[in-house]
Amino acid sequence: MTEQKIPRATAKRLPIYYRYLKLLLDEGKTKISSVDLAEIVKIDAATIRRDFSCFGALGKRGYGYDVAELIEFFAGELNQDNLASVALIGLGNLGHALLNFKFQKTSNVRVSAVFEVKPELINTIQSGVPVFSMDELEEQIEEQRIDVAMLTVPADAAQTIATRLEASGIKGILNFTPMRLNVSRKVHVQNVDLTNELQTLLYFIDNDISN
Amino acid sequence: MTEQKIPRATAKRLPIYYRYLKLLLDEGKTKISSVDLAEIVKIDAATIRRDFSCFGALGKRGYGYDVAELIEFFAGELNQDNLASVALIGLGNLGHALLNFKFQKTSNVRVSAVFEVKPELINTIQSGVPVFSMDELEEQIEEQRIDVAMLTVPADAAQTIATRLEASGIKGILNFTPMRLNVSRKVHVQNVDLTNELQTLLYFIDNDISN
Repeated sequence: MTEQKIPRATAKRLPIYYRYLKLLLDEGKTKISSVDLAEIVKIDAATIRRDFSCFGALGKRGYGYDVAELIEFFAGELNQDNLASVALIGLGNLGHALLNFKFQKTSNVRVSAVFEVKPELINTIQSGVPVFSMDELEEQIEEQRIDVAMLTVPADAAQTIATRLEASGIKGILNFTPMRLNVSRKVHVQNVDLTNELQTLLYFIDNDISN
Repeated sequence: MTEQKIPRATAKRLPIYYRYLKLLLDEGKTKISSVDLAEIVKIDAATIRRDFSCFGALGKRGYGYDVAELIEFFAGELNQDNLASVALIGLGNLGHALLNFKFQKTSNVRVSAVFEVKPELINTIQSGVPVFSMDELEEQIEEQRIDVAMLTVPADAAQTIATRLEASGIKGILNFTPMRLNVSRKVHVQNVDLTNELQTLLYFIDNDISN
């Protein structure tokens, strides 16, 4: 892991680079130029070169980057050797989809506990993962050393759960509710707001704002 | 709709402003300062003032913004009077969740057609929406005047479908596949990459990059 703080925008692109470099290696590609990579990942070549240089990875002119070296490097950065345990809070339609989503295929993430309020789901195993009562939230998060929660509860429950998650020591929340969560800066929140994504897309289309 | 091009980052915040202002009005709030709004939407007050001024909305010092006026204004910007028809391509776990997702509650979006390859789903009605064969994609998109598609097909089918969507005149794709799509600049693509969101969150936690 780097000591220096890297730009948030750069950090967001790391998993994209990582995944595509692995695909390229699988296809037998051992070298890649920033221009060729740009074409594949849809990020411009100058940005790629700047991002890579943040980590001290420097391609050679007329040769490009060594794919395996980059993968090894990004895997370390992304801490791919550690398996992260994630809690899923709320097992509605979206929660169900997330539980069955193939995060594992390309990443180091495993859903290890589900929390629900519906009595018929509590104490069952869903897609190989135990479902706990919401009352057990704090205890299980501590016991299983879960750092990250995916939040898919109804909007009116979101803040209450977020406050409990923070109190139980969670470090990050992937927030699928439409609410903006009120937590301290110690908790990282990544908002995935589907209504917002769709409305933004419609707005871009209506106003022809370029990509 | 505005004639001037507004910054992409500002455009992305419009639906957030819109939704929260509606919540505030529902709670009986008629005026709001940028500082109070900042606290609620988790966007800093200076950014809010700059965003609002892009649209000529100017709060009065010591009074703030008129909530109803802002809502009317943003509703127009977001074209809330027009109902947008959306196609859902792929009815796996995530597709199923999107089909049942309550986009309608706070927005002007309606899923009007689903496209699938599984024979047992074709020609059925799922959650009130007809499921078509993938062979009918071009015809239905044209006939129903669908501008936007949500893409939740397997990764290896993503590019083929995206190419067909572009040829059929689609204007925007909400891309839930992990693939970066190769389409012309005429088609707006909004990527919702869940593995990426989760990995970014983990990276932020590991490296303590501040929110």
